[in-house]
Amino acid sequence: MMQPFDLRLDVLAQAYRDGHLSPRGVIATLRERALALNPEFNTFIYLLSAAELEPYLAALDNVPPESLPLYGVPFAIKDNIDLAGIPTTAACPAFAYTAEQNATIVAQLIALGAVPLGKTNLDQFATGLNGTRSPYGACRNSVHADYPAGGSSAGSALAVALGLASFALGTDTAGSGRVPASLNNLVGLKATKGLISTAGVVPACRTLDCVTFFTATAAEASRLLALTAVKDARDAYSRGNPAWNSAQAFGAPQPGFRFGVPATLEFLGCTESEALFYAAKARLESLGGVPVTLDFTPFLAAARLLYEGPWVAERYHVVGPLIEKQPDAVLPVIKAVLSNAPSTDAVATFDAQYRLQAYKAQCDALLTDLDCVLTPTYPRPVTLVELADEPVKRNADLGYYTNFMNLLDYAAVAVPNAIMANSLPSGVTLFGRAFTDQYLLSLADAMQRNASLALPGGRKMAATVSANAASHDRLALVVCGAHLDGLALNGQLRQRGATLLRATRSAPHYRLYALADGKRPGMVRDEQQGAAIAVEVWELPHSEVGSFLAAIPVPLGLGKVELEDGCWLSGFICENYGLQGAQEITSYGGWRAWLASSL
Amino acid sequence: MMQPFDLRLDVLAQAYRDGHLSPRGVIATLRERALALNPEFNTFIYLLSAAELEPYLAALDNVPPESLPLYGVPFAIKDNIDLAGIPTTAACPAFAYTAEQNATIVAQLIALGAVPLGKTNLDQFATGLNGTRSPYGACRNSVHADYPAGGSSAGSALAVALGLASFALGTDTAGSGRVPASLNNLVGLKATKGLISTAGVVPACRTLDCVTFFTATAAEASRLLALTAVKDARDAYSRGNPAWNSAQAFGAPQPGFRFGVPATLEFLGCTESEALFYAAKARLESLGGVPVTLDFTPFLAAARLLYEGPWVAERYHVVGPLIEKQPDAVLPVIKAVLSNAPSTDAVATFDAQYRLQAYKAQCDALLTDLDCVLTPTYPRPVTLVELADEPVKRNADLGYYTNFMNLLDYAAVAVPNAIMANSLPSGVTLFGRAFTDQYLLSLADAMQRNASLALPGGRKMAATVSANAASHDRLALVVCGAHLDGLALNGQLRQRGATLLRATRSAPHYRLYALADGKRPGMVRDEQQGAAIAVEVWELPHSEVGSFLAAIPVPLGLGKVELEDGCWLSGFICENYGLQGAQEITSYGGWRAWLASSL
Repeated sequence: MMQPFDLRLDVLAQAYRDGHLSPRGVIATLRERALALNPEFNTFIYLLSAAELEPYLAALDNVPPESLPLYGVPFAIKDNIDLAGIPTTAACPAFAYTAEQNATIVAQLIALGAVPLGKTNLDQFATGLNGTRSPYGACRNSVHADYPAGGSSAGSALAVALGLASFALGTDTAGSGRVPASLNNLVGLKATKGLISTAGVVPACRTLDCVTFFTATAAEASRLLALTAVKDARDAYSRGNPAWNSAQAFGAPQPGFRFGVPATLEFLGCTESEALFYAAKARLESLGGVPVTLDFTPFLAAARLLYEGPWVAERYHVVGPLIEKQPDAVLPVIKAVLSNAPSTDAVATFDAQYRLQAYKAQCDALLTDLDCVLTPTYPRPVTLVELADEPVKRNADLGYYTNFMNLLDYAAVAVPNAIMANSLPSGVTLFGRAFTDQYLLSLADAMQRNASLALPGGRKMAATVSANAASHDRLALVVCGAHLDGLALNGQLRQRGATLLRATRSAPHYRLYALADGKRPGMVRDEQQGAAIAVEVWELPHSEVGSFLAAIPVPLGLGKVELEDGCWLSGFICENYGLQGAQEITSYGGWRAWLASSL
Repeated sequence: MMQPFDLRLDVLAQAYRDGHLSPRGVIATLRERALALNPEFNTFIYLLSAAELEPYLAALDNVPPESLPLYGVPFAIKDNIDLAGIPTTAACPAFAYTAEQNATIVAQLIALGAVPLGKTNLDQFATGLNGTRSPYGACRNSVHADYPAGGSSAGSALAVALGLASFALGTDTAGSGRVPASLNNLVGLKATKGLISTAGVVPACRTLDCVTFFTATAAEASRLLALTAVKDARDAYSRGNPAWNSAQAFGAPQPGFRFGVPATLEFLGCTESEALFYAAKARLESLGGVPVTLDFTPFLAAARLLYEGPWVAERYHVVGPLIEKQPDAVLPVIKAVLSNAPSTDAVATFDAQYRLQAYKAQCDALLTDLDCVLTPTYPRPVTLVELADEPVKRNADLGYYTNFMNLLDYAAVAVPNAIMANSLPSGVTLFGRAFTDQYLLSLADAMQRNASLALPGGRKMAATVSANAASHDRLALVVCGAHLDGLALNGQLRQRGATLLRATRSAPHYRLYALADGKRPGMVRDEQQGAAIAVEVWELPHSEVGSFLAAIPVPLGLGKVELEDGCWLSGFICENYGLQGAQEITSYGGWRAWLASSL
């Protein structure tokens, strides 16, 4: 099923700049294609008419394509997110209202030049992970008709997978932005809670909800996040994004990065899913990663709280009044999920929150020494027949690896991994601490390029990977003296939670001096007379960099150091005036060797 | 009422080291004094017997005093905190149990050499702010018999104020660690939630509870916090303390620091309280602070949630089973406070949590550009007669300025401010963002020295203030080039939330060069041929320092720069090799002047 255009952001932007395509032409073609496909896929609940599209297109007239980052980019909106003047249904006709203003994220995207095509189908009130719980029709998979699209953001995933939009907005409370991504060969980014505003989104669980992006590539998700992660005064749960997580991901992880792999894995008997997961693990290793076995028990325990605990009361907060007034307006399966909510009291609510906190303390501790975790996105795909036979159980199966993420406040990205023998796409998930989104996307980009799967539409990505270092919530720091592992000042790193990434050497452009105090070296760049110096690369949490810097006495400081592989990282430098009385020790090749020689 | 010893940590340590005092002698004397005072003040619910004290004293035998940071330091423990082998009552005999192990904080202190004297009186279940709600007797004020000690940590405040202990442990959910401090001329530190473990503490509201320190001086509270703020695996709400907030406070705030003052202040008609508050404000200004008027509405709105919202269910979680089994075992006023808890449901609980989040977003935004906020600790003191007449209303009056603090996750310290005409002590409170504890304590220390009040026991503090810069959650950073206000790279600071503290000059020991790229200066220390260079001091949030550093291209970096006032702050330095092709511009006195000259 070839799509008419390559809708990737950079390809489309180039075509607009070159004048090969115009927004009016692209949008009209996509609209027709969407209308044609909708009877089979039920992708859209509402497609904008030509008249409704006109203001968005008119706003681009006489605007140079390069002046707007998302000029003429077609996107689809899950129908629990407000588009001004258009009904928001949350897949429940009785709940529907016409939105008076755009959700913040929709307003941001339109201001950047993007064009909304319509509102997409979903599991009613975003309660489900399969995409069949909708009065607007079940969503079949984009590739294989026996499988669901996955949900709840089913239509949004389909819009991108079927080549109807460059990207689509979903939401994710329990996995709704990740499960459909992996079932349709897409990247699904559930960014850190609060990075993308939820103002103008019908809540599922307000304390947990995230707006997500579906894209063909991790690089596009990274760009969209970089453009839209802004603190929003309309959303009390909005959070500022630290600068280290603000720029578009374009880097490779530092060799030696540690990724967790659950000690026990559940594939529900599907050996093909298991083999594909281990292929993804091998791929991360080939990218320089070191797998670390991870006790997965507390993550799974936290996951169970989502539907067995009081958080269903958050959903009832939204849907309850309608259920009480018009019981038949809500699908029976949704009513069943919410049925326990009204009888839970405040004492039990706090009690469950205490238990979640206990699990979070355990999970956070397990993540401390890891850069990310790799899991399947779901144990195995389920068929439409299986879903129809056991709708609650099979839906729960799909959430096995996703339900804990929002409760525990982690960032996650679903990454295309493989195509199964039956042609169904299969993905994996990378997750990590809050505010490591761009780092995860750097990894996802490298994995996706390495896997070399065909994108929706049949094209492939170039296999090149950036030589830049990926930006993380920890700063890679080159040390050359008393901070080396085991030496006198190494405790200043370890007390701050720093971990040793690797021992290596500088580029051959440095001279090393023992300063007059005899306790510290000064490493001085000299491209003519320098040598390679033994150094170590440590990872220091960003929150601790300032105090580490403040504790460095003159004449030392932190600047940039070139390593033997050509990479420039932050590291120790020395002011020239501080070399008075220093002894040159370059010939020893490093501080440790000099110390040994002077014993 | 002269106390037998000066129990301040450093004074006592010196007396032990000099052999003038011994732990056995000090403890025995204090125990007798406590017994003598208890009939009047009801300070202790339980005083350890000589036999019960013996193991703690024996552990100090043959230990050099200087080997333990709190060697022989007498301390008192609020009776909702476990001391192994001793009953914990929470001021409710029917609730009492004998603790099997020490609370984490108690174990930490004992391991550091401190000696527990006994368990102190409190408002039952720490529910109250006045110290009279106890079957073990009401606690009168340490100075004025017509006034209460304040609560709920009444006995702990009395133990320090009456010279029976160097410090005491309290707890604080709504102000219980601050109100009694200010009523008794003490420092009361309610550190950031999670910094001091609450494992082994009878919860009031588990999501809000803090363990507090009562001390005679801010410097002692700072030392105790630095010794004990460690992440505790026994407490799921425990949080790691960033290094910038880990060291004992010993610095002065940077001139130009901004402190908020509520736009509308409530003194309940007490003009003396009002005048004393404004004296404290003037004191902060004299220390270099700049007052900023602060909309206090959302703080007060958040405060009302504490007793009108579902958080009383957290108290019921602890006390409810006893009330249901033995209604008469709990004081009527406590039962009245908790009466609404069982009827609150999960939906209403989440709804209140949403409202709190909305207030927190507003309050956090208001605090963004401030270094701290100054408030009264309470509008005015209330008498024992007033409390007896209107027990709930007068208690609520005392919490007007304290109830929001834990809900909003702020750090706070009550600081002695003045003695009222009737001899009653009067304090103020400094509060700020989480993890600014040591910064607040630096300010409190400076205020306390400046106020020069007599300490408990009649002694006064020396008025000297440290010349070091106080450690904050923002790093003071000296910039000299394109990062200056309004220049080309200044956005790199502003995007990271940095604020301009002041424009000043370096010490006259620097040479300035225009680098070969023409866009940036290099500032190079030269004690022989240098001059004073125009610079600016900015405050950069610690979380943003790493990404700011990473964005600095060679040959520049961050080291230390000496200012004209002799203070060394973090700031831009330049590697020597980068001066190739540079032009010396020292004579212009600064980058801005050079830019102007080259227009």
